[in-house]
Amino acid sequence: MASEFLKECVSVLARTPATLDTLLRDLPEGWTRTTEGPGTWTPYDVVGHLIHGEKTDWMPRLAIILEHGPARPFDPFDREAQFRDSPGKSLPALLDEFSELRRDNLARLRALNLQPEQLDSKGTHPALGPVTLRQLLATWTAHDLAHLVQVSRIMAKRYKQEVGPWAEFLSVMN
Amino acid sequence: MASEFLKECVSVLARTPATLDTLLRDLPEGWTRTTEGPGTWTPYDVVGHLIHGEKTDWMPRLAIILEHGPARPFDPFDREAQFRDSPGKSLPALLDEFSELRRDNLARLRALNLQPEQLDSKGTHPALGPVTLRQLLATWTAHDLAHLVQVSRIMAKRYKQEVGPWAEFLSVMN
Repeated sequence: MASEFLKECVSVLARTPATLDTLLRDLPEGWTRTTEGPGTWTPYDVVGHLIHGEKTDWMPRLAIILEHGPARPFDPFDREAQFRDSPGKSLPALLDEFSELRRDNLARLRALNLQPEQLDSKGTHPALGPVTLRQLLATWTAHDLAHLVQVSRIMAKRYKQEVGPWAEFLSVMN
Repeated sequence: MASEFLKECVSVLARTPATLDTLLRDLPEGWTRTTEGPGTWTPYDVVGHLIHGEKTDWMPRLAIILEHGPARPFDPFDREAQFRDSPGKSLPALLDEFSELRRDNLARLRALNLQPEQLDSKGTHPALGPVTLRQLLATWTAHDLAHLVQVSRIMAKRYKQEVGPWAEFLSVMN
């Protein structure tokens, strides 16, 4: 049962870089540099955010759980690091970087050969408190999908005016 | 300007089949046959819906505008046709079918060599009334993206319980 869950997570995690690559690479910048309004992110920003997660969030937190258990809280995650790290990098470069980091992290995850009982290992989130390794893996997976929702929504809303009366049938525009 | 708009639409329309293929092909059925609750669609259902759109919605309506203008309203679109047409077909078969239909439709669209002034051509939607060819193309594009939002959201919500306390940080779960 546990390894079935792990396999399901990895089946999604392994394909996110290719999905974003297929959706975004070589698109006109009108699509990749648009936002949902002031203070919101572009698809380009989202890819940078996913890169920072690979570097500092998911696997580092998993390692903390395995090494320290709940005794050592995770380091806080910087949700805005991409605004410091991405400037000057092209979107294709970011997509390549995300793809490599994810591949390395999944190789590391597989090498851990996690056993069912380890999924119940406890950790401490700096804001949310007690969490499990299983919840961390589920969140890594759902977080990918949530940002794919976001990227597609940012792009769809770019045509809110363009679709004219059809906006009524497209709930994503609201 | 007009051809820029057309190019932008096609840049998205041309990659949607590959994006969905990358996201969904060979995923465990737990991901592709899940819904957001009673009466809602699976990712499998969405692909069937997109197929029906290629057959009866977008290019047929565009042809009606070019041939008849606003005089002939579009035929109503059956949003539920996939529940009649998809059963018995595998998801990979549906992904292949969508990809072929889209490729053929975009070849047909390019062959029309639409001129800027043609984007203002008028049509009549059976429920929404007067629309333009430009709005139809924008809606075809936004509709792809809206269903990519939907597929990713269906999948993310599958882990609503699994993510535990992290649900608070994932607005997609609400």
